[in-house]
Amino acid sequence: MDITVLSIFPKMFQALNESLIGKAQEKGLVNLDVVDFRDFTTDKQNHVDDAPYGGGAGMLLQAQPIYDAMDSVEKNKPGKKRVILLDPAGKTFNTKMARDFAKEDQLVFICGHYEGFDERVKDLVTDEVSIGDYILTGGELPTMNMIDATLRFVPGVLGNSFSAEDESFSHGLLEYPQYSRPADFRGKKVPEVLTSGNHEKIRVWRLKESLRKTLDRRPDLLENIELTDEEKKLIREIRSEN
Amino acid sequence: MDITVLSIFPKMFQALNESLIGKAQEKGLVNLDVVDFRDFTTDKQNHVDDAPYGGGAGMLLQAQPIYDAMDSVEKNKPGKKRVILLDPAGKTFNTKMARDFAKEDQLVFICGHYEGFDERVKDLVTDEVSIGDYILTGGELPTMNMIDATLRFVPGVLGNSFSAEDESFSHGLLEYPQYSRPADFRGKKVPEVLTSGNHEKIRVWRLKESLRKTLDRRPDLLENIELTDEEKKLIREIRSEN
Repeated sequence: MDITVLSIFPKMFQALNESLIGKAQEKGLVNLDVVDFRDFTTDKQNHVDDAPYGGGAGMLLQAQPIYDAMDSVEKNKPGKKRVILLDPAGKTFNTKMARDFAKEDQLVFICGHYEGFDERVKDLVTDEVSIGDYILTGGELPTMNMIDATLRFVPGVLGNSFSAEDESFSHGLLEYPQYSRPADFRGKKVPEVLTSGNHEKIRVWRLKESLRKTLDRRPDLLENIELTDEEKKLIREIRSEN
Repeated sequence: MDITVLSIFPKMFQALNESLIGKAQEKGLVNLDVVDFRDFTTDKQNHVDDAPYGGGAGMLLQAQPIYDAMDSVEKNKPGKKRVILLDPAGKTFNTKMARDFAKEDQLVFICGHYEGFDERVKDLVTDEVSIGDYILTGGELPTMNMIDATLRFVPGVLGNSFSAEDESFSHGLLEYPQYSRPADFRGKKVPEVLTSGNHEKIRVWRLKESLRKTLDRRPDLLENIELTDEEKKLIREIRSEN
């Protein structure tokens, strides 16, 4: 997996060297280049932004430095690219999109900044993506989120002990509550079933708690999955308990 | 605004020193402390995680180091706190939540990691928040997103030339397309109205394009706002054009 980021704040991406993603880079599972598109400005002051036509507050990122930076990326790394731009009007990023991105050979992320960008930048992109219904000062932080979420689906990144398929959303349900040592912490005790050693009882308890949490917090998720007979029975139990 | 982050990857938060948020810290508008809760472990190896009761893949963050780190935060910074934990089952983060967080004196963010945490940690928190329907290797990146989105609503952070209220979602509509110099870039031209100098025509064009984009991409947003007569008329025009 090869990733290029276009940003005027390249130092921010050092954050990705910490944690698992740094290890994935060391293992050669991913190559990440951050291109500062300020290097592609043509005026003496290295301005990347200018006032909007038609007036209004704020300064827009101009098309030229971003187009020229993309030309340079294309020259250095030819081939098919998925080019992703953060935009509040885009499709909301989710696990399915992360899994799709993880199948690509080359991803390019263009980071805007908080006052917006020239609309013509959109002609360069394959995917307009929204990170959610909130606004940030720039595209760098949400881009790091997308890179992290995507790389989790690249084989080898998470190691053998754990799989990205094990979690919330992967099976369509929210995760059951988990507990680690000690069994009694400041008077707060672990549910007895989990220390019983009865694997079948533990499995059923976990499935039931996953269903309970999903019913309570995100019933919309249940509309997208086909429930087994066991799951249907557990849902009836949960409903009769309330 | 005082922010404390509990994380075992404190270096990642240096990313926030770049860009606007670093300036907000310099201006004294926000104080950010990152507490490494590994410093509060009691075993010789400084482990923060252990296997889950009942079996299963992965290691869970244990309650003890996080509880002890919170005790220390409470001692150093007494007073009412909003304590936020990232959890896929939480309420989805959005602009409204960012605006609410911005009104608090003290925010605390607890960063989990990708294999989960002991359920008892939740007894410390006031808000379980989801960053969206995707999973990350840790809570650090989404926490930085939330801090950035929140600080934009702290007066003075964005400066005078621009307001967080000017954008997508703030008025309930997606933003209209924007253009900056040059008027003709690689044959791609700016819409004529924007260079006409006719402010009323520009205003109506922008409102119409906002409505067009919202109708096309996020019609759900229109359900939450009361449309003016002018907006209703423009929507009828857009529909008759299709």
